[in-house]
Amino acid sequence: MKLPVGLNNLVEFLQRLPGVGQKNALRMAFYLLQTPDSFNNELAETISELKKKVLVCQECFSVSEDEICEVCQNKNRNSQIICVVERADDVLTIESMGGFEGKYHVLGGAINPLNHIGPENLRINELLNRVIKNEVLEVIMATNLSLEGEATALYIKSKLNKNVKVTRIGTGLPMGADLGYADMATLQRAMDGRREI
Amino acid sequence: MKLPVGLNNLVEFLQRLPGVGQKNALRMAFYLLQTPDSFNNELAETISELKKKVLVCQECFSVSEDEICEVCQNKNRNSQIICVVERADDVLTIESMGGFEGKYHVLGGAINPLNHIGPENLRINELLNRVIKNEVLEVIMATNLSLEGEATALYIKSKLNKNVKVTRIGTGLPMGADLGYADMATLQRAMDGRREI
Repeated sequence: MKLPVGLNNLVEFLQRLPGVGQKNALRMAFYLLQTPDSFNNELAETISELKKKVLVCQECFSVSEDEICEVCQNKNRNSQIICVVERADDVLTIESMGGFEGKYHVLGGAINPLNHIGPENLRINELLNRVIKNEVLEVIMATNLSLEGEATALYIKSKLNKNVKVTRIGTGLPMGADLGYADMATLQRAMDGRREI
Repeated sequence: MKLPVGLNNLVEFLQRLPGVGQKNALRMAFYLLQTPDSFNNELAETISELKKKVLVCQECFSVSEDEICEVCQNKNRNSQIICVVERADDVLTIESMGGFEGKYHVLGGAINPLNHIGPENLRINELLNRVIKNEVLEVIMATNLSLEGEATALYIKSKLNKNVKVTRIGTGLPMGADLGYADMATLQRAMDGRREI
């Protein structure tokens, strides 16, 4: 039995979202068949408006409602400590832990030759410029503890002036882990146990 | 740190989908921030067009592209055997198993007093009419093996003429299970081992 085209299209779209398999996509699609029209229309509008409403901070490249994000605008935060992460959602993860008083820098990924992502595809030059401009004292490398994240951390370390202290979050997070799925206690340990590279 | 409004709205909408938690919704929303505009727009359109393009079969109430679905239109299928399921996706599950030659009837749920779903909210009268009109010989009750599904099966049995054979899928599916997540072998055993109630 073939699925009706409209339903089939939706299932195919939903399956491309991260963490959504075929069964799940089918379940969501059938759910959307019985929700009120208003819910479907609002969901559709939110998706198509998403990129217009959510901006990228021109300072740290995290998500923002304005040109410069809340964290970068906050004068109480220390501009001389920058925590470097791969993705914007990693900023949220560290912020939800609380206690970090510095600022962030979102690279937009990690060096990954197999996927043709080199240093030039990441916001590394922007980081190096910020470090000079703000006279940064410490760069905390909080890229994922994968091969790519480690390589990116080492690459950035090699590009920074020797006077800048470069640290790496360490204790607690197991190798191969994804930052987004760390529990808060582990993340706190990793932040406390950062080591110089 | 507050999420930008557009992102936050999307996360809240996505969290209402079945099987989507907060972490998952956030991951999907961030994924949609980096997909091409065309993907987001097409996904949005598919969602808002869904209910216009996917019709409900006027015979069995499964999903369909036309007024009458593929299965109901198929003259090779036996109209005198009706398999009764709770939801339209249960039809897909049984069809993907293959081998069932009868037709279907989608109730639209199961009797559930706690959620204020009584027999009058389900398509039971439509089933009783079909049984008379098509001189149905056997009604296979394939509602879920939950309390609600069992109660619905017994209720429908009580409403049908004593001449109609009413069977219940049985062996294999554990009590409390959801039809949509059964493996094909278990489902086949359940179909073969149906028992009269």
